[in-house]
Amino acid sequence: MDQPRQFLASLFAAAVAAADPDAAIRAHLPERPKGRTIVVGAGKGAAHLARAFERSWDAPLEGAVVTRYGFGVACERIEVLEAAHPVPDAAGLAASERMLQLVEGLTKDDLVVALIAGGGSALLPAPPEGLTLEDEIALNRILLSSGAPISAMNTIRKQVSRIKGGRLATAAWPARVVSLIVSDIPGDNPAYVASGPTVPDKAGPFDALAAIRQYDIKLPAHIIAYIERAAAPAPHPSDPKFARNTRHIIASASVSLEAAARACEAASIRAVILSDSIEGEARESARVHAAIAREIAGRDRPFEKPVVLLSGGETTVTVRGTGKGGRNTEFLLSLARDIDGIEGVFALAADTDGIDGSEDNAGAFADGGTIGRLRSAGLDASAALNDNDAWTVFHAIGDLFVPGPTGTNVNDFRAILVR
Amino acid sequence: MDQPRQFLASLFAAAVAAADPDAAIRAHLPERPKGRTIVVGAGKGAAHLARAFERSWDAPLEGAVVTRYGFGVACERIEVLEAAHPVPDAAGLAASERMLQLVEGLTKDDLVVALIAGGGSALLPAPPEGLTLEDEIALNRILLSSGAPISAMNTIRKQVSRIKGGRLATAAWPARVVSLIVSDIPGDNPAYVASGPTVPDKAGPFDALAAIRQYDIKLPAHIIAYIERAAAPAPHPSDPKFARNTRHIIASASVSLEAAARACEAASIRAVILSDSIEGEARESARVHAAIAREIAGRDRPFEKPVVLLSGGETTVTVRGTGKGGRNTEFLLSLARDIDGIEGVFALAADTDGIDGSEDNAGAFADGGTIGRLRSAGLDASAALNDNDAWTVFHAIGDLFVPGPTGTNVNDFRAILVR
Repeated sequence: MDQPRQFLASLFAAAVAAADPDAAIRAHLPERPKGRTIVVGAGKGAAHLARAFERSWDAPLEGAVVTRYGFGVACERIEVLEAAHPVPDAAGLAASERMLQLVEGLTKDDLVVALIAGGGSALLPAPPEGLTLEDEIALNRILLSSGAPISAMNTIRKQVSRIKGGRLATAAWPARVVSLIVSDIPGDNPAYVASGPTVPDKAGPFDALAAIRQYDIKLPAHIIAYIERAAAPAPHPSDPKFARNTRHIIASASVSLEAAARACEAASIRAVILSDSIEGEARESARVHAAIAREIAGRDRPFEKPVVLLSGGETTVTVRGTGKGGRNTEFLLSLARDIDGIEGVFALAADTDGIDGSEDNAGAFADGGTIGRLRSAGLDASAALNDNDAWTVFHAIGDLFVPGPTGTNVNDFRAILVR
Repeated sequence: MDQPRQFLASLFAAAVAAADPDAAIRAHLPERPKGRTIVVGAGKGAAHLARAFERSWDAPLEGAVVTRYGFGVACERIEVLEAAHPVPDAAGLAASERMLQLVEGLTKDDLVVALIAGGGSALLPAPPEGLTLEDEIALNRILLSSGAPISAMNTIRKQVSRIKGGRLATAAWPARVVSLIVSDIPGDNPAYVASGPTVPDKAGPFDALAAIRQYDIKLPAHIIAYIERAAAPAPHPSDPKFARNTRHIIASASVSLEAAARACEAASIRAVILSDSIEGEARESARVHAAIAREIAGRDRPFEKPVVLLSGGETTVTVRGTGKGGRNTEFLLSLARDIDGIEGVFALAADTDGIDGSEDNAGAFADGGTIGRLRSAGLDASAALNDNDAWTVFHAIGDLFVPGPTGTNVNDFRAILVR
């Protein structure tokens, strides 16, 4: 606490460590089964999860995971397949068939470990009888451009699939299925990540049709007719085939923020998580964060000092200038203007993958003296912000945060200490 | 609580009632003095305050206040002067002379009531010996375009004045001075409202020069030389001439938010004030409010349900379209998109003066069903937001909030119930 930057950097380190695939897998290893261990999986991070799992699992295993083209890493015991994202292709269909084949004919002594991460829905197309891969591709394209929330999209996808909505798990029955999930979904509902191939939810064909109507989604008539027939609805969570299964969110923005909060509390400072899913223009989001920090600094509300405000999510930058910078340095430059001259406020904002924008920094530090330091260096914060040039000014005063690439990603990490 | 909209409207009513000049003055009436009662005052709301004071004061009084051209209201016993704002003029100088003359020659048995509101600094020019009204006008123009924070501007103004920085109070000594202040300043520091004619702060000529350097404010050399000479620095708060004086913030965004919070608590619901001074683009500010509301709805953090989030300040709208709407309806339409489908979240955003933008509504209501109601009416929230047409869509579904003009103004009021 004598050194706010080191303290904030330690919170970032805790957040990143909690999202590290090896650590996350090790913390959630299932019990070794009597029978076979089969690994399946899908998502942008699925290959890293597979490698982490086979490193930690000192027993026989076999299996396959599918990730996005270019996202594969070498595994020794698990096949790593690649397919198209965000619009599915035939390689994805082959991957789905491979998963379904792997879990066929298992017994109750066998264990299926499902490694699920964001993006897995597109990577596992499996059109049901009567529909084609082209139908599923068209469905996905229409959903992605519909503006419907992810929950509505998932509800529809699950009724048009042989693998989503828990069907991969029922295909594996009577084997026990343990799902280890890296969530990219606000709220971390395990049934929503990758359209839940191993995790059912209550929504059925009726809910899918309601979502289509509510969001006015223009699907081809034969796809709507298929859903209306409800010939093979997704299984309900109360289905006894799910009774022995478990699921764990092993990494997410929220899990990382909670790890940072624990690191705060270990240093005897209260931490509060504002949100794991803040979206919107970075510089504007910063103004609300700054207003809350000022309220704490001046009036000890809505939280008493000292306190650390934590937030995650993924802000955006509308580029209008020609400068250098990412969403986290833009956030901080805007924040710095709004806390100018206020004592005791220290902020770190950084991308958990270690790279914010085009340069080698993850983010930067800002406090009530940032604007003064910029002025002393002959730099104008507002002009830099207008030119999207936040990196340049933080670089000029030596306030960049450069931990290097982290090998993981749970979006943005922001920590604001008010003391 | 069964009727969230009525509940939220009652919080708005509590906030507005707390900012009503009559109620605010009545709640802070000083004790009747043995001697004379002199009223002075300045600010955009000074005439309303004067009228409220003379209505409540059933004893002799005399005095004068100055307000902005067009902001005068008829008073029976207090002179109402008008002058230029935000750049001073000769009428303001005459008003300053009148105030200083009114408080001349008083005794310790006399009472001076100072009615101070935002804008009073420009309305009370009083250049010190050796400088002219033109110098003070030039100083004000340069400060207003400098981008320096209000605290820095005040620190400089106070060293170049015969009335600011507590000097009106020392001129009234040995009379007792009671300052009743309507604050438009984040943090409600009484010394900062209207450059504190009756309320001193610790900053002296040295601090003024430091602020000029820090914010690189290009003042004429003879004004800087005047400050450097420090011939007549503003009095220090420890000056015994202030010993018997008191000051009260009788209305402000914060006072109104606190009144709304008490109304919540009277209904046994916890209220938290996020900030009294949120600025920035309305639709983006809404996204952070929505993210916090979602975090509470889904995970009971950073506050447990049920809770009401309160915030104030003044957001802005960058107009790109041709529709109808104000900053509060834009805020709500953006919020509605981000809480679509979430149960138990109900929001009211409204301008405390009763008019949001060009129509007759103060604001509107939004909740997790707003987007659905818009769709059912054939309306698209995103298209409306792109066209700055929030009023039209809230009007179409009957969700406007129309309490009528309130006769007061402490900027925006937002209340979000999560239950």
